[in-house]
Amino acid sequence: MSAALPSFDDIRDAAARIAPHATLTPVMRSDALDAMVGAQLHFKCENLQRGGAFKFRGACNAVWSLTDEEAARGVVTHSSGNHGNALAIAAATRGIAAHVVVPEGAVRAKLDAIEQAGAILHRCAPTIAAREAKAAEIQHATGAVMVHPYADTRVMAGQGTAVLELMQQCEGLDALMTPIGGGGLSAGCSIAAHGIRPTLAIYGAEPEGAADAALSLVHGARIDPFTPHTICDGLRALIGESNLDALRTHHVDIITVSDEETITAMRQLWQALKLVVEVSSATVFAAVLKQREHFAGKRLGLVLTGGNVDLDALPW
Amino acid sequence: MSAALPSFDDIRDAAARIAPHATLTPVMRSDALDAMVGAQLHFKCENLQRGGAFKFRGACNAVWSLTDEEAARGVVTHSSGNHGNALAIAAATRGIAAHVVVPEGAVRAKLDAIEQAGAILHRCAPTIAAREAKAAEIQHATGAVMVHPYADTRVMAGQGTAVLELMQQCEGLDALMTPIGGGGLSAGCSIAAHGIRPTLAIYGAEPEGAADAALSLVHGARIDPFTPHTICDGLRALIGESNLDALRTHHVDIITVSDEETITAMRQLWQALKLVVEVSSATVFAAVLKQREHFAGKRLGLVLTGGNVDLDALPW
Repeated sequence: MSAALPSFDDIRDAAARIAPHATLTPVMRSDALDAMVGAQLHFKCENLQRGGAFKFRGACNAVWSLTDEEAARGVVTHSSGNHGNALAIAAATRGIAAHVVVPEGAVRAKLDAIEQAGAILHRCAPTIAAREAKAAEIQHATGAVMVHPYADTRVMAGQGTAVLELMQQCEGLDALMTPIGGGGLSAGCSIAAHGIRPTLAIYGAEPEGAADAALSLVHGARIDPFTPHTICDGLRALIGESNLDALRTHHVDIITVSDEETITAMRQLWQALKLVVEVSSATVFAAVLKQREHFAGKRLGLVLTGGNVDLDALPW
Repeated sequence: MSAALPSFDDIRDAAARIAPHATLTPVMRSDALDAMVGAQLHFKCENLQRGGAFKFRGACNAVWSLTDEEAARGVVTHSSGNHGNALAIAAATRGIAAHVVVPEGAVRAKLDAIEQAGAILHRCAPTIAAREAKAAEIQHATGAVMVHPYADTRVMAGQGTAVLELMQQCEGLDALMTPIGGGGLSAGCSIAAHGIRPTLAIYGAEPEGAADAALSLVHGARIDPFTPHTICDGLRALIGESNLDALRTHHVDIITVSDEETITAMRQLWQALKLVVEVSSATVFAAVLKQREHFAGKRLGLVLTGGNVDLDALPW
């Protein structure tokens, strides 16, 4: 599960490719949150992206990178979360088929959203092996192109466009932070950020119970297997091989946060920004709060990754 | 409790006056919500205004309309809700004192916010008479200028700037809708809208349990006393005298909605727009949903009035 890292040019190409389809998301600020940290925080609101998450960027870039011949056979992925939904919406923008493999027991509301976007659902047993086998079976039967959630060059390039935009929207940032799950966003954003300003400080936020990227950096190699335990459902994926390389190359400094810290941060974000952001997104603000002496006086860009929340089960 | 209605020029002056202090709030859209209604909905996001509500516009215009001599004596109001908070923040932008009379039993979090903004709290018994008496006492003792939440020309002019902005941000609207409480927003917005386009259709949304404006229009005169019963805490005020005149003059068509319809609409707004909006704000979407045949195919501007929500007590 490795994929070549995109170049800065790949990210610029991705930005042009997705521009007709993606939302230019706003950057929001809050005096109250700035005061809590003693820094200037610039929140890139990917919860306002199509499909409610940054994932649309990568999926859309992948879909529109295909030749007409490839596209005609459709795309396939195994993700019941934001990536599955994003790929369904992206495929619809090109009028092609999207196959999404979902494990038994996935949240009904998420599956409804994926189906509503026009994708074909394929059920399988709730194991990684079953999901991969099912996806391979569909690839074989239909010729559909696999679009992996993060170990995919096109996907990483697409995710990087979030920071390309952010750095155009607010100049003079001192530092940048994204959450770290599989590492598609953090890899793409690191490459984008250093393509623009090679000296920018880059941080990642990771839940303590899913800190495989932080551990892998210390350990010097990817830790696998690893069983994550965190409320941050968007950050349970293990860091990809080349994604880890990108973190190393770009000197990404990882700050780990407890779920309790993240939930507190999530509530503070809702209260101050008046935005619905999902728990995984709140790790970045939790990390800044935790290390506030370190960030004091800085201009910080933070990516709020998504807003797909079960409003009947808020974590506080 | 009557006040002269502002002119269109008053509203334009207010826009210039508050520009250095107020947020130019975004207009948001959602394909999902458009599809539910079969219309094009443009949401003016006043939940993203300073203090989390449109109320800052009116309070800020009032504060900056004062002569230096008046300003030196401060301002006073009786409101434990968004207006009290807005006046506190507005007074701080001019560095003057704000006195806010609050009834015993008001929500602690709201009082904390008002104090944090720098205002002086004055407690009184939880009756209208006690609040007015206390405010009069403070006026007498300090010379502070009373800034009524809605029966105030400067406040109405300030609220009207929300629609001035909205109509600059999206051209070609067919209709406009705001919630109706005391009528500061609906009066100001009606005057602003018809100043720009005299034929624009204007609607108001009112909770069934606080439909004193709708009843007053039918009855031909202001109904008072009237005891409101609604979950929409921002819409319990009775319509002001001149505010009612404005609704009549501008042929504002009122649609009443049940609290149940409003709560459903609130949840749908959160889900689709990823925005935290308060229950009073959701009346406008509830009204559009209820009358969807009437609005089919139209371009509609809706004011989302605020985002100050108790996140521990969501109504669904």
